[in-house]
Amino acid sequence: MSSDKNKKPKSNDGSLKNTKTVAKLIQKRKTINPNQLFDQLVKGDRIALAKAITVIESARLEDQAIAQNLISKSLKKTIKSFRIGITGPPGVGKSTFIEAIGKHILKDRKKLAVLTIDPSSQVSKGSVLGDKTRMQDLSANKKVFIRPSAAGETLGGVARKTRETITLCEAAGYDTIIIETVGVGQSEIAVHSMVDAFCLLLMPGGGDELQGIKRGVVEMADLIAINKADEDRMEMAKKSRAAFKNAIHLYPPNENGWDTKVLTCSGLNNKGIDEFWKELQSYYTHNIKTSYLKKRRTSQSKFWLHETIINHLKNSFYQNPQVAKVLADIENNVIEGKISPFQAAEKLFDSIREE
Amino acid sequence: MSSDKNKKPKSNDGSLKNTKTVAKLIQKRKTINPNQLFDQLVKGDRIALAKAITVIESARLEDQAIAQNLISKSLKKTIKSFRIGITGPPGVGKSTFIEAIGKHILKDRKKLAVLTIDPSSQVSKGSVLGDKTRMQDLSANKKVFIRPSAAGETLGGVARKTRETITLCEAAGYDTIIIETVGVGQSEIAVHSMVDAFCLLLMPGGGDELQGIKRGVVEMADLIAINKADEDRMEMAKKSRAAFKNAIHLYPPNENGWDTKVLTCSGLNNKGIDEFWKELQSYYTHNIKTSYLKKRRTSQSKFWLHETIINHLKNSFYQNPQVAKVLADIENNVIEGKISPFQAAEKLFDSIREE
Repeated sequence: MSSDKNKKPKSNDGSLKNTKTVAKLIQKRKTINPNQLFDQLVKGDRIALAKAITVIESARLEDQAIAQNLISKSLKKTIKSFRIGITGPPGVGKSTFIEAIGKHILKDRKKLAVLTIDPSSQVSKGSVLGDKTRMQDLSANKKVFIRPSAAGETLGGVARKTRETITLCEAAGYDTIIIETVGVGQSEIAVHSMVDAFCLLLMPGGGDELQGIKRGVVEMADLIAINKADEDRMEMAKKSRAAFKNAIHLYPPNENGWDTKVLTCSGLNNKGIDEFWKELQSYYTHNIKTSYLKKRRTSQSKFWLHETIINHLKNSFYQNPQVAKVLADIENNVIEGKISPFQAAEKLFDSIREE
Repeated sequence: MSSDKNKKPKSNDGSLKNTKTVAKLIQKRKTINPNQLFDQLVKGDRIALAKAITVIESARLEDQAIAQNLISKSLKKTIKSFRIGITGPPGVGKSTFIEAIGKHILKDRKKLAVLTIDPSSQVSKGSVLGDKTRMQDLSANKKVFIRPSAAGETLGGVARKTRETITLCEAAGYDTIIIETVGVGQSEIAVHSMVDAFCLLLMPGGGDELQGIKRGVVEMADLIAINKADEDRMEMAKKSRAAFKNAIHLYPPNENGWDTKVLTCSGLNNKGIDEFWKELQSYYTHNIKTSYLKKRRTSQSKFWLHETIINHLKNSFYQNPQVAKVLADIENNVIEGKISPFQAAEKLFDSIREE
């Protein structure tokens, strides 16, 4: 009885427990030794990897210094990794697909990390339960590391953290990285700019599911899979596949000469998944042979360098109190056609100079 | 004989003639009275319009002040204009198409201006001969104003000048503006961001002509025409049309609910051109009814305001001598994976602060 009484407050009094846990965490964080953490991470310690990512995601100044140290060290640990982006409209079955393809990937490659980009995510840093429930088998596998998106961040912030998390994962020996995006807003472009292969999942049907997808995303895809091609929808899926195959030829060719592949599959019934993984591998091999992989990664690095610069410049400009004060008015004048956009821009810069 | 002798130096000694002309021009320019010029322009004086555009294109400070004055005045003269963008790969027959559709346009609308965006253009400001030869009938028509792209400019510069030229043309009563782009680089995106309808011309065939078109342009099109659908290529053109019609349905729908139309036509034989113009008018009416025209123009104005701001910020940053000094090295370090793109960006900003 007394032991039961003691247990109850422990499990129910979340606030007390949390306060203690948070205090403990802070205590722990203070004693982070980047060298030690990195050594553990390289040895494949998943807790160390998770901790390192949390440091990267942290806004605290002392953490940022450690984060930079960890990234610099990780960059020196290059491995031949394969970075795969997966996108698709909500309900297309991305998690089930990843759960299914993950098993095939692990037959050929050493370790798999699954990261998510979701700028709209309100998931707190610790709660990976959502993702773990979505991918039960993978999350139980010791060769797999699953990490949800950092929460409450701008897309730029999430993108940076995801790029840096890729670096940490690769240093930890994860030679295959899947980056899943929820398929809203600009996140596909961000993911496309950090992967070697960009896959689009679609549902069998007439294209209604494309409602949620931004224009231009179909053209970004290196591989397209008509998922949920189950018994009752097989005919429809085959039709969709044929239609997309024809459509692909009417669009400008890929820079690397690759013919975008369209396949049908069922993540749920594990059908066509092996074929999809084989196509992905062919694509990877094609890009290594043609040196396109290196070219793509180089241009991605440049893209993120300049994207970061531009974001920084934009933030300092728009956060300038003088700009913030007059921007709405000037923007309205532009919309109402009282002033040209170019004159308006000049006016804004003048207002800063006069300051 | 003596008259021949006198003639020869005149026609051959270009330098002398040019010097005189230039001096005259400068003299003329100095005496520009913006109020008078604007009044002439509004009355439909084509020479005044051409002169006003030259002022806009001028880099001279005194001209810029006059240009701003002219644009401010023009912005107050709003008319119900229809701005049409036309793009397509080289050789698709854009000029012949414009020459053909121009005649149909003039049956329904008052006046037509044809502007070109070509950041690669080396054509000097005065030489409109190229365009006039390309569109002989239109250039002889007093209701038509043809102006080639400003030369030797960045895309940003050309875009600004084209946007401002549209404003001047509308003040001069040109209620229909065609903006033609040569179909290279980023110019399609710029044109798409300044028109009410974006048309893509393609050739009958298997898609080889898409080589020159940037990915994403097909999805930007509101209307697609398979041009050069002449007798011997009619079957092929019909096939291309059917294929594109099917493909369109597999791509995300347009924001305004408009179903992208695909037609066949022949600019050379004036076939299908009337139908194309009718579709363009339906599109315009659809957008007026749904208020999408206003929405699109509002977002375009905002786009150009912020685009100008960003370009200005980028220019000042990259032209900073400190940045210019270290950028190449830092970029190389990023490409070689010695430093992350985000660390590199911070390093660049630090180097300016330390200055």
